[in-house]
Amino acid sequence: MSQFINAKDTIVTDAIDGTLRAAGGRLARLDGYPHTRVVVRADWTREGVALVSGGGSGHEPSHAGFVGRGMLTAAVCGDVFASPSVEAVLAGILAVTGEAGCLLIVKNYTGDRLNFGLAAERARASGLDVRMVIVDDDIALPELPQARGVAGTLFVHKIAGAVAEAGGDLDAVSAAAERVIAGVRTIGMSLDTCTVPGAPPVQRIAEGHAELGLGIHGEPGVETVAVSGAAQAMGLVVDRLAAGMADGPHAVLLNNLGGTTPLEMAILTDALAGSRIGERLHWMVGPAAMMTALDMHGFSVSLLPLEAGRPEALLAPVEPGAWPGAVALGEVTVRALPDGSSPVPPAASSHPARRAFLERCCTTFIGAEEELDALDALSGDGDTGSTLAGAARALQGALERLPLADETLLLRAIGAELAQTMGGSSGVLLAICFAAAADASANGEPLHAALRAGLARIREVGGAQPGDRTMIDALQPALDALDRGLPAAADAARKGANATAGMTRARAGRSSYVGADRLAGNNDPGAEAVARLFEALGGA
Amino acid sequence: MSQFINAKDTIVTDAIDGTLRAAGGRLARLDGYPHTRVVVRADWTREGVALVSGGGSGHEPSHAGFVGRGMLTAAVCGDVFASPSVEAVLAGILAVTGEAGCLLIVKNYTGDRLNFGLAAERARASGLDVRMVIVDDDIALPELPQARGVAGTLFVHKIAGAVAEAGGDLDAVSAAAERVIAGVRTIGMSLDTCTVPGAPPVQRIAEGHAELGLGIHGEPGVETVAVSGAAQAMGLVVDRLAAGMADGPHAVLLNNLGGTTPLEMAILTDALAGSRIGERLHWMVGPAAMMTALDMHGFSVSLLPLEAGRPEALLAPVEPGAWPGAVALGEVTVRALPDGSSPVPPAASSHPARRAFLERCCTTFIGAEEELDALDALSGDGDTGSTLAGAARALQGALERLPLADETLLLRAIGAELAQTMGGSSGVLLAICFAAAADASANGEPLHAALRAGLARIREVGGAQPGDRTMIDALQPALDALDRGLPAAADAARKGANATAGMTRARAGRSSYVGADRLAGNNDPGAEAVARLFEALGGA
Repeated sequence: MSQFINAKDTIVTDAIDGTLRAAGGRLARLDGYPHTRVVVRADWTREGVALVSGGGSGHEPSHAGFVGRGMLTAAVCGDVFASPSVEAVLAGILAVTGEAGCLLIVKNYTGDRLNFGLAAERARASGLDVRMVIVDDDIALPELPQARGVAGTLFVHKIAGAVAEAGGDLDAVSAAAERVIAGVRTIGMSLDTCTVPGAPPVQRIAEGHAELGLGIHGEPGVETVAVSGAAQAMGLVVDRLAAGMADGPHAVLLNNLGGTTPLEMAILTDALAGSRIGERLHWMVGPAAMMTALDMHGFSVSLLPLEAGRPEALLAPVEPGAWPGAVALGEVTVRALPDGSSPVPPAASSHPARRAFLERCCTTFIGAEEELDALDALSGDGDTGSTLAGAARALQGALERLPLADETLLLRAIGAELAQTMGGSSGVLLAICFAAAADASANGEPLHAALRAGLARIREVGGAQPGDRTMIDALQPALDALDRGLPAAADAARKGANATAGMTRARAGRSSYVGADRLAGNNDPGAEAVARLFEALGGA
Repeated sequence: MSQFINAKDTIVTDAIDGTLRAAGGRLARLDGYPHTRVVVRADWTREGVALVSGGGSGHEPSHAGFVGRGMLTAAVCGDVFASPSVEAVLAGILAVTGEAGCLLIVKNYTGDRLNFGLAAERARASGLDVRMVIVDDDIALPELPQARGVAGTLFVHKIAGAVAEAGGDLDAVSAAAERVIAGVRTIGMSLDTCTVPGAPPVQRIAEGHAELGLGIHGEPGVETVAVSGAAQAMGLVVDRLAAGMADGPHAVLLNNLGGTTPLEMAILTDALAGSRIGERLHWMVGPAAMMTALDMHGFSVSLLPLEAGRPEALLAPVEPGAWPGAVALGEVTVRALPDGSSPVPPAASSHPARRAFLERCCTTFIGAEEELDALDALSGDGDTGSTLAGAARALQGALERLPLADETLLLRAIGAELAQTMGGSSGVLLAICFAAAADASANGEPLHAALRAGLARIREVGGAQPGDRTMIDALQPALDALDRGLPAAADAARKGANATAGMTRARAGRSSYVGADRLAGNNDPGAEAVARLFEALGGA
């Protein structure tokens, strides 16, 4: 099992049942599992035009997730990436169609066209008024006679659904759907293809590349492009959309193809809003997973010209939770920092020897970044090296403005710098350390004693003691040995760091959440960092 | 670039800007990028108790996505998986706290505890009434003195937010938060760990296994367990939760850890509702990505006892779109199939030779399943073999009830079976083929001519012609040769199938979306299937 499924045969029925259970009674399904998988509005009384969509599964929440007041009346679900049978589509039509008739919203794939088309013929033969629209919003292959139907289908569901909910007749609902289809345009991009349940994962796209113009069934993209960042990647997508884009303002739908994280989708939103067409995008739907391709690590962008009435139709409230709503896409509002949160910096002063010493500390941490990250990845989240190196780089950049000539002020300023730039638990602990050392220094303690006072304060606030597998296991012996010179301190730090490899039950810090078998034999990355610092300073 | 980011340094600021742009003006941020990353309600006037949360990034939409009326007042965002600095937390507190005071909601990690704690101290020093609660809902490590804070934190945001929105004072808001914390319990499971941006992907968990009791920072789970399906996996999670579960009904929050598809989440919802504790879960929040761990392919389940007032607080409307709402978790409602959608089956009859012939057809397709899937994966979605084998298995199961003794009825019945069970474009095309062949047979045509009439109908409805790289390229020559015997038909089918390897511009079917370089040298899987069938029947 490489996915959370029970069996290949029950993927769709299990998923539909899960959707129904979490729908608060809003949805029902027709009998007829496993061949007939039709989700219907539980409250539907056949008054008004019914909207029926569907197609292969693997595109969740499409389409069952969009069944509900204001959008679809029924969704007919096929197997993963396979069209539902004619019988199933016919059952869906018959289950919800009353005197006002029914609109079938079909994505332009041969199977869907055939099955929905044949089912419509059979339903008409029994006297029902059934129309069908074919969504072909994909612009990836302009030369193809029949463009695919992809995420722009959601605009059809929403706008035709709003017309139907407002009491429009079948002519009005069909016309609204046709007008959306005539205007909507979509293109997708992905860093990786999808994994079909039960099939081995396919790795088709090389690192640093993306496929542009892909479909929602794992079929390859039209083009493989080099990508260097989210904004550049979005720029390639926007270029395709901008060519042939209608005049005037547009609505945009930013769709997660399934395997893109919310973090990435937010970054892509910023890239889209900041793109060359950003100012023309007045309303946004998403970012959200609306028309997925299983776990595809990609996104699609759909544009719809904002004809009269469309904002109202997009904003009309609907029942399905899978519809994320439409929001005004806008600028970032920035507020001034509140008073009192920025400490007053001390005056800069010069001291070449201390400056060189600090430079050496910083370059040591920067040089050890990758190895310390790798060490941390064995038992934690792999960021010890990055965190220390980031702080070191920030401190390097701050050297010009530090009060280097005054030891007490310098200790306090280093603490303030680390508090501001380092983050992470080690950041605040080191900030506390330097603040406490500064206090001791202000009270007349020499530097080594002041640093030991800082360490005592870390142990007090953080709760870690020697033997707990933290940086203290190297820092304590190093500072204790410091009066005997840096080489002695380096030796003590190394012994202390190496001893952590035998400490298999961490009692503080993040490795306290990790089992003993993952800790044994590896030095604690914080202790290792301390050892490397003293070794560099001690000339070892 | 293996993720949609711009640079490691701007991940968090880009994502915040994207979130703000798509918030319709509801949110603002404090100045102070890149060190101070605080998202605040744009409409906040410091009247009422402020709720401030935050922590490391990588958990989107937590926490910035939950800022808005009814939930958080501000979110302070650290680097990915690293706590924000004391300065940033302090800025957040100062920006939103008025006379009614402020509650800090902090997940129990050392860094967050230290940084939020120090910031609270400094805010109190300037006269503000600041309280702090520590969420420790993780039950993975019962022996740990300090449990982690994970997705159960969302219950704290929602319920404390409802109390604050209703005008509760700081005592009431803090008490509500503390009561939630005392009762909420969470455990997570994942099939794979997460990929930290800029770091190489880590593959830690073997196929067929999952980690149980993991955190939200990629730290390993407490236990590696064997998993065989979604329901069994959910059962392991439920077992941990059931031990120590409070009496009475509960609310449940089903959280996507980032890399789980909506399809899988729906299957897991069904598994959870159907589990041994399912009947005690009255309200459900999700399934949704609420507290992610980047792209972790897993989920977590949080339980909260339904004390008096809690359903109302959970159901109270809020502004943040990231909150999916709470719905009554229930049974699956099933409606009877509508009249007219189930064709009346013909009476079964016996004909051992035809039965043996059909058995041979079915076993041929079943035996070729994997190879045909593999062939299809080269140019399509890899399901040709599965689709045909699935239909063959269904037909095998239907042999008992087929009218084997009557050729016309049998052709019609096979068409009806395929229409009901096969799905996919090949399913409906074959159904049309057999329906048309039955019509021809009813008009007195012999079997071979009837099958050729069926093929003619496929070409008419589907629009594909010989040379278009479809099953027709093998089926047409085979049926044309059939009067000369099965070996001749098999030979013609094989030649026709092999000729498709040279057809690099498909004009029909799904491979019409695929570039020529991906088609050259490989037989069309539909044509290959036809060739294999005739070869098996012809004894080749």
